[in-house]
Formats: sequence, C-alpha cells, structure tokens
Amino acid sequence: MSAKTQEPVITKVSDLPVHEARWVTLRKIEFVDQTGKPRVWETAARKTTGRAGVDAVAMGNVLRHPSRPPSTMLVIQYRPPLDAYTVEWPAGLVDADETPEQAAVREFREETGYDCRVTSVSPPQAVDPGMSSANMQLVMVEVQLGEDDELPEQRLEDGEHIQRVVVPLAEFYDRLVDYARQDRMIVSAKLFHFAAGMQFAKTHGGVPTNEE
Amino acid sequence: MSAKTQEPVITKVSDLPVHEARWVTLRKIEFVDQTGKPRVWETAARKTTGRAGVDAVAMGNVLRHPSRPPSTMLVIQYRPPLDAYTVEWPAGLVDADETPEQAAVREFREETGYDCRVTSVSPPQAVDPGMSSANMQLVMVEVQLGEDDELPEQRLEDGEHIQRVVVPLAEFYDRLVDYARQDRMIVSAKLFHFAAGMQFAKTHGGVPTNEE
Repeated sequence: MSAKTQEPVITKVSDLPVHEARWVTLRKIEFVDQTGKPRVWETAARKTTGRAGVDAVAMGNVLRHPSRPPSTMLVIQYRPPLDAYTVEWPAGLVDADETPEQAAVREFREETGYDCRVTSVSPPQAVDPGMSSANMQLVMVEVQLGEDDELPEQRLEDGEHIQRVVVPLAEFYDRLVDYARQDRMIVSAKLFHFAAGMQFAKTHGGVPTNEE
Repeated sequence: MSAKTQEPVITKVSDLPVHEARWVTLRKIEFVDQTGKPRVWETAARKTTGRAGVDAVAMGNVLRHPSRPPSTMLVIQYRPPLDAYTVEWPAGLVDADETPEQAAVREFREETGYDCRVTSVSPPQAVDPGMSSANMQLVMVEVQLGEDDELPEQRLEDGEHIQRVVVPLAEFYDRLVDYARQDRMIVSAKLFHFAAGMQFAKTHGGVPTNEE
C-alpha cells in the first residue's frame, strides 16, 4: 500500500476538448417534444458504458459479526471533480464482459478486501437525469464475519487510495451528517439518501400512519 | 397547459464542442495525488452553479391529508439524456440570487402547484462523484392538505411537461420497483436510494440489532 505523504492538490483546470476526452463526453441531443416542437438538450455521458448498458454498481453492504452490531463499510477517497474527499459506498464501473453481480463482487473485494454475498440487485437508476445519461444499479451485499477476523488487505489498482471506515447501521445517518460537516469532505447523494430514508422510516414509523 | 400529442422522439445526437455548450462543460483536472504523483482526471460540470455553490435542490415531500395516509408527490418527465421518462422528486437548479430553501419552495410550487413548508435542509451532497462536480441538497418539505382540496394548477415554464403522481409512503418502494419495470421509464437514483433505505429500515428494524 502506498504511503499517504500529502494532501492532493489541483495544479491546473482547463477546458477539455471533446475529441481529446477518453472517459466522458458532451452530446447535443435534438428532439421533438410532446407538443411537436423541436428542442435541444445538452448532456454529458460516459464513453465507457458496457454491454449490459449499465455504467456502474454501488454496493450497499451489511457486515454481520457474531458479537458486534450490524455495520456497513464506507469508503473515503479524494475525488478530483469535487476537489474533496467523498464518503460513498464501494462502487465501480461495470466492465464490458461482466454482469452487475460480477462487477459488484469484484469491486467490493478490490475496495474492501472482503468477499461478499449478493442479496439483491436493483433496477437501473438514473444518477443525474437532467445532466447526464449515467446510470447505476444498487447491489445489496452481505459479509459474514468471524469473531476474530482481522481487516483484510485491499486489492487496489495503481493510483487508487481508498480509506475504509466501518459504521454501525444504527449510527449511519448521524455519522454521515458528521462527515458532511468536516472540511473538504462531501457525502455521496445516493449514500446520503439511503441513510436519510432509513432515518425517515425510523422517525416516522416503519409503516407511516396518520397518527404521527 | 400544453396538450400531449405525441411521444418525444430524438432526431439527432452529435458531439457538442465545449465552446458551444451553454449548460454543461468538460474539464481536464491536473492534480498531484497522495503519493506526490501528477495525475489527470476528466470531469463534466454544470456551467450554472449559483452563488451558494450548490447546483440543485430536490424536495423530499410529505403530503398530509386529514383522512388519507401520508403520501409523497413524484414527478414524471421525459429526460432527453436518457431518452426515457424519469421518476423523481420535484427538483430544480438554484438560481444565482436565492438560497436552497427559497429554490425549494419556488420549484416545488412550479412543479406541483403546492405551497410547502421546509422541515429540514441536508448538507450538500455529491451527485456523481467520479464523473462530475454536480452537487445538490435534499430539502424535506411538508404540505398540509384540507379534506376536499383539489389538485392545484402547476406553474410550469415553457417547454416543461411534468406529470404528477401521488404515492402513499407505505407503498413508496414497491411503486418505484413497478415503475422501473415499465418500458422507457427509469427511476432517479437519489429517489430510489431514499425509498430503499426506508424499505431496509422496515425489513431490518428501525434500529438494527444482532437478533435479526
């Protein structure tokens, strides 16, 4: 594992010509709307969308331990687009030759070191519908730990620097709010929304009624 | 309100040169990483980020009615980047001269017709951290309905065609899964994650324990 010797620093930001971009691109969409009127929409897109038609998976994970409360593993990494450290669930792009389930197990092992069991796969979801075509699937996974298991080694690719944190599910929402208050940190919207949904259900009752 | 006379049809998709784009752009970020190595990251960004530094708000909303179960209003609209109808919470960009709360109340009235009361504002969240700098805040709002209130008129801008649906919160997750199965429909990741978090809390207990 590479030593962290310094804070990442942006040295230059410049416009990126579309023909030079390898990972992302801009497209102009001309369409006829519901009333028959021709319109134009500007959109960003990934250039890497795989065979499955899905860009990415994120792994909503539950770590079960014999004597500790059920927890989830979050990953914290420097994200240049935001010039900040993001708090996210482990996630990654789906390779051209793999299914979302396979991508989930592979990426989860790379980022966390754990082998996981897939418990459910969501339908494709639109990540930022007004701005881009990016989509993803939420893959729920579980890891059963033994009493004395130690944190396994990550298998990160060159250039990846990903810190792992384990958060008890009962503290999930509060911990995200704490992270969001820290300097140069931002929580992923998908992760925050999941935790906010849990918190909402907890404070409004699992099955909301008029009696609240 | 404009009549819906046809399904939207994309007539042309072309590369959009960065210097022609008005709403989105591509940027090349050069940075020095944790190990001191110079690296490059390609990113998409909105050109419209306001004074508050936050691009957008989404309104997680609860409609309270004297005799009906608490519900939420979702909006369905054609989104050219996905060539599909998306299911989302009402949302919009924050104008340069307004706060997130003001944007939430304004956009909620435009898209739903309702005046709402803001109950909480989340920290800024990163919408798609690996791909773009886009960020947003989740603003929770409530609407208190009267027994015989009729659905109010929307105040949509020219070119906006937004269908409203009211979903009881107890059916939230199941309804999103149903929508996701329909042809040419996709659910917003943020919305799906909130509902999945509610569902998770419901099925795993509000405060998860080891007894599950």
